[in-house]
Amino acid sequence: MAPVKVFKIGGNVVDNPDALNRFIREFASIKSPKILIHGGGKEATRLSKRLDIPTQMIDGRRVTDRDTLDVVTMVYAGLINKRIVAALQAVGCNALGLTGADADCIRATKRPANPVDYGFVGDINPADINDLYIEYVLRQDIVPVFCAITHDGKGNLLNCNADSVASSVAIATSRIAPVELIYCFERNGVLRDVDDPDSVISIITPSIYEDLRRDNIVADGMIPKIDNAFNAINRGVGSVTIKHSDNILSDIGTTITDA
Amino acid sequence: MAPVKVFKIGGNVVDNPDALNRFIREFASIKSPKILIHGGGKEATRLSKRLDIPTQMIDGRRVTDRDTLDVVTMVYAGLINKRIVAALQAVGCNALGLTGADADCIRATKRPANPVDYGFVGDINPADINDLYIEYVLRQDIVPVFCAITHDGKGNLLNCNADSVASSVAIATSRIAPVELIYCFERNGVLRDVDDPDSVISIITPSIYEDLRRDNIVADGMIPKIDNAFNAINRGVGSVTIKHSDNILSDIGTTITDA
Repeated sequence: MAPVKVFKIGGNVVDNPDALNRFIREFASIKSPKILIHGGGKEATRLSKRLDIPTQMIDGRRVTDRDTLDVVTMVYAGLINKRIVAALQAVGCNALGLTGADADCIRATKRPANPVDYGFVGDINPADINDLYIEYVLRQDIVPVFCAITHDGKGNLLNCNADSVASSVAIATSRIAPVELIYCFERNGVLRDVDDPDSVISIITPSIYEDLRRDNIVADGMIPKIDNAFNAINRGVGSVTIKHSDNILSDIGTTITDA
Repeated sequence: MAPVKVFKIGGNVVDNPDALNRFIREFASIKSPKILIHGGGKEATRLSKRLDIPTQMIDGRRVTDRDTLDVVTMVYAGLINKRIVAALQAVGCNALGLTGADADCIRATKRPANPVDYGFVGDINPADINDLYIEYVLRQDIVPVFCAITHDGKGNLLNCNADSVASSVAIATSRIAPVELIYCFERNGVLRDVDDPDSVISIITPSIYEDLRRDNIVADGMIPKIDNAFNAINRGVGSVTIKHSDNILSDIGTTITDA
């Protein structure tokens, strides 16, 4: 089928109604088949706080006990997912909100409790993604909107990392169509100097990546994002770019390439 | 297409994990195309309480201000809907959780603020239900699982009454197939004596209904349910029954008929 664009937006976009609306308008205007994956960590942290449920993060990943699983299911699959779907419908983009449990789209495996017990956290093997169903939805001119909640097929919901859901969905979709994966966030791309929005690194190859990590230009949350990007490229995704959520139609951004 | 069974389960079933599991197992075993609509009012009331959001009910309907809309969206579309979908997947029933916003399935109209301002509460016209999409899902052997959240097509989610969603979906589906609507709750049917589970009234016709109301045997929450049932029958639904959620495969229950 026609090339598919897979977009991922994170908590900073989802949390900011103006930024989200700008993104949604540009996203809806894209004519090619497209998929949206969204995060939403901050709102979950806020709700946990209001409910006196302690939030524990290890290496940037949320430890998900049963109460926290309920919180992220409510916030990601309920509040944020349905807000986005309703907003897309309002601009004429026929969207379908999905968790991995819906139509058995994404089965994940509960992460082993050793060495760290993350609780109800799942890891995704792209082979366990229902690409047939995704193709079915896309062929109906419907836009799948995934939150990062999946299931294990045994009745348990699992909390996954939204960047990993995006790369896994992109890899799975590349079995049925050429795929472009676009990570959108609140910056113009990977920046050489975080205080200079014009210092976008336009291309990152494996060897450039090595240099950037050695020089600590790429650090923290950007590392798993770029690792996910290289993983996606190595497993069938045509291109991965990192862009500002305000400018998804522009050429400004960082392209990750293995060439 | 083949006859479709539309089931509705309410808060008392959804709130009780054992009752829900029993229902899910029987429901999953039904071979014909089927649709599930669920309520979930109690869990929303509990969450509102924990968040210090006042719950206001008028004539059994929840007044839905913006905070309450967030709560019901989280609880109905997130927590309960995805729990049910994951549980159905675990017993081999391929389910797809939906709000009215998803795939533009159900557009509703915000109820006028006069004489009572219910806030973000929607009323559904069955003509505005996307029967083509429902047919599409059923033909894929996927079971649509609706919560009672819909949208207005302008970006607003709306809280609807789950009984009304059930009757509206049944009416809309009757445009594409013969439909049987089954309301499931914690009793064996409409009882002549609420303390005697064996006093099931097996048939209610309009004239019997008149007598039952006059004698106060049918009162309170049962009235809108039976009104919805008659409305469904008058608009194309083949049959409506009210049953215990534990015994959906049995013949015990109340049949509403206009004949």
